[in-house]
Amino acid sequence: MDGQPQSEPASPETRARIRASFDRQGLMSHLGARITHIAPGRVHIVLPSRPEVTQQHGYFHAGATSAIADTAGGYAAFTLFPENTEVLTVEYKINLLAPAVGDHLEAVGTVLKAGRTLTVCRLEVFGVQDGEGSRKLVANGQQTLIRVNSPEQ
Amino acid sequence: MDGQPQSEPASPETRARIRASFDRQGLMSHLGARITHIAPGRVHIVLPSRPEVTQQHGYFHAGATSAIADTAGGYAAFTLFPENTEVLTVEYKINLLAPAVGDHLEAVGTVLKAGRTLTVCRLEVFGVQDGEGSRKLVANGQQTLIRVNSPEQ
Amino acid sequence: MDGQPQSEPASPETRARIRASFDRQGLMSHLGARITHIAPGRVHIVLPSRPEVTQQHGYFHAGATSAIADTAGGYAAFTLFPENTEVLTVEYKINLLAPAVGDHLEAVGTVLKAGRTLTVCRLEVFGVQDGEGSRKLVANGQQTLIRVNSPEQ
Amino acid sequence: MDGQPQSEPASPETRARIRASFDRQGLMSHLGARITHIAPGRVHIVLPSRPEVTQQHGYFHAGATSAIADTAGGYAAFTLFPENTEVLTVEYKINLLAPAVGDHLEAVGTVLKAGRTLTVCRLEVFGVQDGEGSRKLVANGQQTLIRVNSPEQ
Repeated sequence: MDGQPQSEPASPETRARIRASFDRQGLMSHLGARITHIAPGRVHIVLPSRPEVTQQHGYFHAGATSAIADTAGGYAAFTLFPENTEVLTVEYKINLLAPAVGDHLEAVGTVLKAGRTLTVCRLEVFGVQDGEGSRKLVANGQQTLIRVNSPEQ
Repeated sequence: MDGQPQSEPASPETRARIRASFDRQGLMSHLGARITHIAPGRVHIVLPSRPEVTQQHGYFHAGATSAIADTAGGYAAFTLFPENTEVLTVEYKINLLAPAVGDHLEAVGTVLKAGRTLTVCRLEVFGVQDGEGSRKLVANGQQTLIRVNSPEQ
Repeated sequence: MDGQPQSEPASPETRARIRASFDRQGLMSHLGARITHIAPGRVHIVLPSRPEVTQQHGYFHAGATSAIADTAGGYAAFTLFPENTEVLTVEYKINLLAPAVGDHLEAVGTVLKAGRTLTVCRLEVFGVQDGEGSRKLVANGQQTLIRVNSPEQ
Repeated sequence: MDGQPQSEPASPETRARIRASFDRQGLMSHLGARITHIAPGRVHIVLPSRPEVTQQHGYFHAGATSAIADTAGGYAAFTLFPENTEVLTVEYKINLLAPAVGDHLEAVGTVLKAGRTLTVCRLEVFGVQDGEGSRKLVANGQQTLIRVNSPEQ
């Protein structure tokens, strides 16, 4: 395994494990985000536009943009981890490339390099206008994650 | 002005301008964050602990931690800008140093270098246990912001 | 112009302008680096292996890896700038993904987003073993650059 | 040990271990850099001005600035590591705040958080004019490092 994401879907066990973890994230449901795609080394998260996720000009807040980007990258890494492990974000860097507007944002986390301890992901966030079929890159980042063993039950 | 933060409070006009802008940020009120300190080149934002801001282990979500850090840095820069200007985040990088736990988080944005176009801030987030008087650095970052002229009314 | 790099070569004027600038960089010739490809929004720089660019274990030093990555990104942005402008690096972030080994390193700077003031590039560095035809990603980063007008002569 | 740098000098063994490692870095001697201060959690590296470390305008090249910043942070972390371990840079981010000019640059790496696996450092680079006694912050960054066990001899 060299960390290259693949196009086939993740196994049912992996998908179930990630959905269960995602559902325990109070912030994601509070923002209204949902996971829309889980493949080995790649996860998509969608955040619909609503006043509760805006900054002072009515665009998506950089904090909301970053939150779904960070989460997408974390679960992208997690798809490649064995059972009884957890993923933690070590750090990330994100550029806000354009005003984050659209009917919804789509964050895409993609594993660039999977290691035994550390994994590095690319983070992309697109602003999508459903009616017009437009999809524009509004943020781009890079993230480092660490794998830790789950505490004994 | 060389961008060094000062200890005296910001002017009433600056404080009013920042509070008005903050109140227009749907995300901040949705998360339950509030501004607690506004000085020239330095702004503090507090986020109380609640299930709506957690990740899967019950800690503050990195997205919530980052959202208040980004906002604190943005307004720290904004305290040094002239009227009829706006501030936009160009990019930031943040390390999650320790599990973000506590009764509340306190994000501190501090201007490191103020320029005519670009401003660079240090971002720090502390986990605070009110009862115990403990305050621990849980995240540390660095942010680049750009000053833009406000659109004509 | 939306910042997407194109595959045709840059104009002779652009190539000459970049080569002249590169030749004025004392560090690049001191390290032994050279530009090998200049296209609109994309520049490659090669650094041969030699003891003068190593760290303590004999691999390429992260500082050398970063220096050619930063320079490749800067000139990639510069290919899209008008005459009488200069490019300055605002900031960059780079992950060292694997030990940087090989007969030479190849840094590839690619414009992700070109703006009037700020440009964002992706930075990639590959370790290349000439004899074996192997080419491995050893570093990956992201960079923000600013366009400034040249001082009057 | 909570990673806070201390003001007393490092032990003779630590200083010797770091100087021996530094002397094996081909790049540092090729650039003309030298270590000037080693304390627990803090290391200084100085780089004198010379044409071999410049960019196209005659300032210190961002690659040279970054190389000494990365190295200062790496050895700052290394001062806190036990014997028979090595330090590797995972990633860093650096803002170039001002043109890097001066008789020499001084890079200061300071441990912000020391962990068993990962350590985070603050990176600062100052441009120093010896005659005028001026010392100006020209770059500021943040770095993540990993501790690995030395291979068996």
